[in-house]
Amino acid sequence: MGRTSDARVKILSAARSLIELRGYSALGVAEICKAAGVPKGSFYYFFASKEALALAVIDEHWTGQRSTWERILSGDAAPLDRLRRLFEETGAGQLAGQRSCGSVSGCLFGNLTLEMSNQTESVRTRLQEIFEAQAALVEAVVTEALERREVTVTDTREAARSVVAQLEGQVLFAKLYNNTRRLDSLWTNCLALLGARTAGEVTVGT
Amino acid sequence: MGRTSDARVKILSAARSLIELRGYSALGVAEICKAAGVPKGSFYYFFASKEALALAVIDEHWTGQRSTWERILSGDAAPLDRLRRLFEETGAGQLAGQRSCGSVSGCLFGNLTLEMSNQTESVRTRLQEIFEAQAALVEAVVTEALERREVTVTDTREAARSVVAQLEGQVLFAKLYNNTRRLDSLWTNCLALLGARTAGEVTVGT
Repeated sequence: MGRTSDARVKILSAARSLIELRGYSALGVAEICKAAGVPKGSFYYFFASKEALALAVIDEHWTGQRSTWERILSGDAAPLDRLRRLFEETGAGQLAGQRSCGSVSGCLFGNLTLEMSNQTESVRTRLQEIFEAQAALVEAVVTEALERREVTVTDTREAARSVVAQLEGQVLFAKLYNNTRRLDSLWTNCLALLGARTAGEVTVGT
Repeated sequence: MGRTSDARVKILSAARSLIELRGYSALGVAEICKAAGVPKGSFYYFFASKEALALAVIDEHWTGQRSTWERILSGDAAPLDRLRRLFEETGAGQLAGQRSCGSVSGCLFGNLTLEMSNQTESVRTRLQEIFEAQAALVEAVVTEALERREVTVTDTREAARSVVAQLEGQVLFAKLYNNTRRLDSLWTNCLALLGARTAGEVTVGT
């Protein structure tokens, strides 16, 4: 079992890197196995198909990201400070990725949404669940901020979705321009989207 | 020349449809020619490579979209009304696409950014130019609105980029959820991002 479990981890890790580098569609199982250094038989022992592998890559990434988001967003700091922290850590994570592999890889979920969501219903459904879970985590913080009268939204879920949409849009540009400075405006934009009272006259571009 | 020019149009049209359906990476030249109903020799008469075809598809799409954006954003209406019109037409366009092919196809440029920008420098450069051109078109309207004291931004280009980022993020979700209602919040979010004075207490979710 030791060796086979190890093979599963190797396949997932190789697939994750290859998907970040070249997307999902162009990958073949043989290429993934070669990069992972495992025989093709191992692949089908662990994954019924390439689609099943994609779902496993998504789930593994979300498990890690969800725990990071929960840690940041459920701390003792003031709700808006926690939200700010989320953007700072997102920027730091993209910068670390750029330093290690030369280019900003962007958001795995956003990448796969645009590449796969119209082709593979199982992947679409999983990504929908993940983005709703992200919106729910942000919404909880927005609700707290609303109770403290620090923001002025009337539909907290819709506001949270807009914050996540702004994040996805700016991460897309950070990837396109290979420049994480594109993420610097996230916090000011978030305050604007939430009608944050603490923002005063602060609007985007300030 | 008549027949060959026709072949070029057919190849471009087939490639555009196939890229919208399944992305770029997984496509082969043979498949594109088969869908276009032209011999493979025709392909290499018009395009040096699959990459050259991708650039031609991008350029053709941008030529059409730029003229639409220019028409909408340079009209006689008040600047913020023109911006609102841009979002309405974007939503209408995505809805028409969904009705004709069953699914929201999203933004071709955003799709290709996430799929190709880290693989093909020529495509990355072209897409960067297009998104900067979009930001410039939006910026011109924001500048007019600023002169009329209808918005409160301090960096008009940065504000325009944030508006385009919000558009890309929401179009991504419209595609993922196959639901153009995701675009309904664009206008309110735009007002919030621009610190629009006409927005009063309007914030996202209202």
